Amino acid sequence: MTTEGAWILTLTCADRVGVVAGVTGLLARHDGFILDSQQYADLETGRFFMRVVFARGGPRFPDDADRLRLVLSGVAAEYDLGWSLTRSDARLRIVVAVSKGSHCLNDLLHRQQSGALSAEIVAVVSNHDRLRSLTEWHGLPYHLLPADKAAQEAEIGRVMHDAAADHLVLARYMQVLSAGFADRLAGRCLNIHHSFLPGFKGARPYHRAHERGVKLIGATAHFVTGDLDEGPIIEQAVERVDHRASVDDLIRIGRDIEALVLARAVNALGERRVFLNGNRTVVFQ
Amino acid sequence: MTTEGAWILTLTCADRVGVVAGVTGLLARHDGFILDSQQYADLETGRFFMRVVFARGGPRFPDDADRLRLVLSGVAAEYDLGWSLTRSDARLRIVVAVSKGSHCLNDLLHRQQSGALSAEIVAVVSNHDRLRSLTEWHGLPYHLLPADKAAQEAEIGRVMHDAAADHLVLARYMQVLSAGFADRLAGRCLNIHHSFLPGFKGARPYHRAHERGVKLIGATAHFVTGDLDEGPIIEQAVERVDHRASVDDLIRIGRDIEALVLARAVNALGERRVFLNGNRTVVFQ
Amino acid sequence: MTTEGAWILTLTCADRVGVVAGVTGLLARHDGFILDSQQYADLETGRFFMRVVFARGGPRFPDDADRLRLVLSGVAAEYDLGWSLTRSDARLRIVVAVSKGSHCLNDLLHRQQSGALSAEIVAVVSNHDRLRSLTEWHGLPYHLLPADKAAQEAEIGRVMHDAAADHLVLARYMQVLSAGFADRLAGRCLNIHHSFLPGFKGARPYHRAHERGVKLIGATAHFVTGDLDEGPIIEQAVERVDHRASVDDLIRIGRDIEALVLARAVNALGERRVFLNGNRTVVFQ
Amino acid sequence: MTTEGAWILTLTCADRVGVVAGVTGLLARHDGFILDSQQYADLETGRFFMRVVFARGGPRFPDDADRLRLVLSGVAAEYDLGWSLTRSDARLRIVVAVSKGSHCLNDLLHRQQSGALSAEIVAVVSNHDRLRSLTEWHGLPYHLLPADKAAQEAEIGRVMHDAAADHLVLARYMQVLSAGFADRLAGRCLNIHHSFLPGFKGARPYHRAHERGVKLIGATAHFVTGDLDEGPIIEQAVERVDHRASVDDLIRIGRDIEALVLARAVNALGERRVFLNGNRTVVFQ
Repeated sequence: MTTEGAWILTLTCADRVGVVAGVTGLLARHDGFILDSQQYADLETGRFFMRVVFARGGPRFPDDADRLRLVLSGVAAEYDLGWSLTRSDARLRIVVAVSKGSHCLNDLLHRQQSGALSAEIVAVVSNHDRLRSLTEWHGLPYHLLPADKAAQEAEIGRVMHDAAADHLVLARYMQVLSAGFADRLAGRCLNIHHSFLPGFKGARPYHRAHERGVKLIGATAHFVTGDLDEGPIIEQAVERVDHRASVDDLIRIGRDIEALVLARAVNALGERRVFLNGNRTVVFQ
Repeated sequence: MTTEGAWILTLTCADRVGVVAGVTGLLARHDGFILDSQQYADLETGRFFMRVVFARGGPRFPDDADRLRLVLSGVAAEYDLGWSLTRSDARLRIVVAVSKGSHCLNDLLHRQQSGALSAEIVAVVSNHDRLRSLTEWHGLPYHLLPADKAAQEAEIGRVMHDAAADHLVLARYMQVLSAGFADRLAGRCLNIHHSFLPGFKGARPYHRAHERGVKLIGATAHFVTGDLDEGPIIEQAVERVDHRASVDDLIRIGRDIEALVLARAVNALGERRVFLNGNRTVVFQ
Repeated sequence: MTTEGAWILTLTCADRVGVVAGVTGLLARHDGFILDSQQYADLETGRFFMRVVFARGGPRFPDDADRLRLVLSGVAAEYDLGWSLTRSDARLRIVVAVSKGSHCLNDLLHRQQSGALSAEIVAVVSNHDRLRSLTEWHGLPYHLLPADKAAQEAEIGRVMHDAAADHLVLARYMQVLSAGFADRLAGRCLNIHHSFLPGFKGARPYHRAHERGVKLIGATAHFVTGDLDEGPIIEQAVERVDHRASVDDLIRIGRDIEALVLARAVNALGERRVFLNGNRTVVFQ
Repeated sequence: MTTEGAWILTLTCADRVGVVAGVTGLLARHDGFILDSQQYADLETGRFFMRVVFARGGPRFPDDADRLRLVLSGVAAEYDLGWSLTRSDARLRIVVAVSKGSHCLNDLLHRQQSGALSAEIVAVVSNHDRLRSLTEWHGLPYHLLPADKAAQEAEIGRVMHDAAADHLVLARYMQVLSAGFADRLAGRCLNIHHSFLPGFKGARPYHRAHERGVKLIGATAHFVTGDLDEGPIIEQAVERVDHRASVDDLIRIGRDIEALVLARAVNALGERRVFLNGNRTVVFQ
């Protein structure tokens, strides 16, 4: 859905008459050709969300990013926009945190290799050494984290800083982040939870799904907050199971959904299609 | 999956060597031709479940139901079977309880009319008069229930008794059964809950789904027990939604899933494909 | 997704810089408050499609439909728009054509009754008398069509004219329209086909699906053109089946999908979310 | 669904009274404890299919495979069974044929590595060298095939023979097998086709899906026969798309479905759940 040479503008503001006209009018006056535009007005909260993909459409289009930002800053001030402008080919840099399970990491790495990931994995961190070989085969650095939790999180922060990574993706990391670290990464840390939230919050969801005898199991990608498994949901999917499925079967079946849901969420983030809206998300398609 | 002139034998017992051979051998010796057979051994609980559909396959086949039952009672005693034998064309008689919402009732009535329901609705009961016209147009009796809860349940029991109905189907009935009445109908009372249990147990699930910002909504058909929304699950399904869906949208989208999930559960019951297995179910396909 | 008191503007034109700005700027200058806006630029064909839902947002908003149309005609001329303006509560009037099968008609009628249909069924026409009782119970006129094909189509045209209906919905009508009639209704006649097109075009798709041993069956709602089963697709869905399903099972399972897919397509039309784009469609969500 | 130390018996025969009893009675008399049993009688063709998983349940159970086969050969002769007996932990040996696209191969290799593949990849063959590194990193031999078709197929046959592989899996191999080679591998060669067959048979299905404007795209795993894209279907799945999806988007979205459908089909084969039934399949779950 993105195009080379194009720009992605995302913005949010209080909803009022004229925002769309203000933004699109400005783009038109500067020969910005709109390739895609999606918007959503939340009538309950009064917030407005917009994502515009545009490209040079004529001679008045600004020559570089700084001039473009300058042009946009006028309308941004007028409507009190929270906004972000990126080149559509500037890939979101992510650090992936894993534990022992390889399915999510392998899926992300293979998508990256085959050009199907809209973000760039720049490093992998883990509290185990098991997935080092897989990571390094893909030519990426693998950082074994110290056992102490505070040291662990400090190390993750250092890796993110050194790799100029904005986002952290917990790909079955199996560790609860401290409230402080979660706050620091608010809106920039994504987790895959192996249940269809809010069902089976917390530990061992497949065991509890088996005990409860559910007929569908699921996975949920969400932003991490200090409140465990309560962060804003980005993507969910389910798979049908029946009475014959043991806990091990559920775990095995669940792997495919977890990997798929996480990949979709990472791609949505990478394409700047995800907005926070209180404890919910707006995810343009 | 059923056939005219055929019989359905359902059984459950402690699992051990020889059960299948005992049952199928007996059928073979009496010229019973097996049309379909499904079985499941729960290795955790040691329970065995079996559903066999069979028909006359030769001259030694018993002439009537009594003789067939007599033949089966031998193997039933040997393996300590809980068992049930019905003609495949003997339809399960159900009373449907509704409140004001018509979508589940209309769906069941139309399936009955078009031959797509594997059970027979013999009466409709309600604490409102709103769905009388719809019910009576389909030629079925409609009973308005008294306001008092005890009287209400007594009246439902009377309607079921008079109509020789074994099962009660709560098709968005919006009333919690008393523990005593739920116990009395154990394994014979089905409810459709408008969420993907165990998420959003209790009241107003669509409102809470909206607040939580889930990306899928669902419905759950389950047996009613004294423990609200905790009964054994028979069938579940979900539908994708996104940030644009208001609570009203969720309610509207959810109606289709509720009707479909309930119809599937009623058909599974009617075809004798559902077994209780502790707080879970075995549902053969 | 629609709102009382609001307007829906749909438009299509050759894509160029400034269309969005032109339309939204005009709305802003006349105090039009945008509630929803979706657009799509087809880079292959160079066509642009837009649907804007807006409402009065201030004193400059035109007082009536005529003035609003006058205001819009300026921008329409400037950008050579094909455009349409309707009140969001002005329901699309449809005539439904049926044969003997009731599932699609019943589903549409019940949705209408329960407020879940974004169009208004104003009459039912049929070449059989079987569904008269169902239709009339819902308080709608039922027209039995003559046997002769030309007379049949003339009668449908007359019913549509008398009922001021714009669209014809073939809800398992089982008759092929003449090329002339199909042309006359181009973009205004919707059919539900009981297969996942382009698989199993033509007659008896469930029989052929059974012969081919497919593992999913589907249904397709599409615009009718002179080229049978080749019209632009509006909506499709599938359901899983397995080797045990007989042709009759497929027909029975397929009914649910047919009714659901048709209802979704009618709602998309009724909400003015469907655009023709050559032999394809643009369907905003 | 399989268990260590267990045996899988698959059989097919003309359907008649007593087959199930004959098989299960024999197992019971030799202390075979049935863990799972599925069967299907095709009333149209009169063929019967059965898969029984059983284990030692007492002292009379045969001590080794030869004795077990001897025991079974009696009932096999009596009912004229086509039958096969394998240990449940004896994995089906497969050779995977690929071209340039890596998504299906990577998915299979990762499933193998993580214990989620019910077959064993013993070699990879390809007409390009591109996927050598991926294959060899997983410790598997990679054979570059000669350009000449006859030589190519001879080499595949040689690799299969040397690796004692029974089955060939075309994981986006992009070459049409010769009729002779397809015949020789009848029932032992699996292909993943990147469309929802029978729609878009032949080349460039995503391009044609885009032209046709379908709202769902799919993938089909089927046995290869001399009749291109007409072999018996094992598994299918679809994914929703909309008007915004370009051909490249369809190709990208399709990769996930292709890999998933192929993995499911390979697992079904590996678990001996797939039977040929004329030009269709029986796939037990």
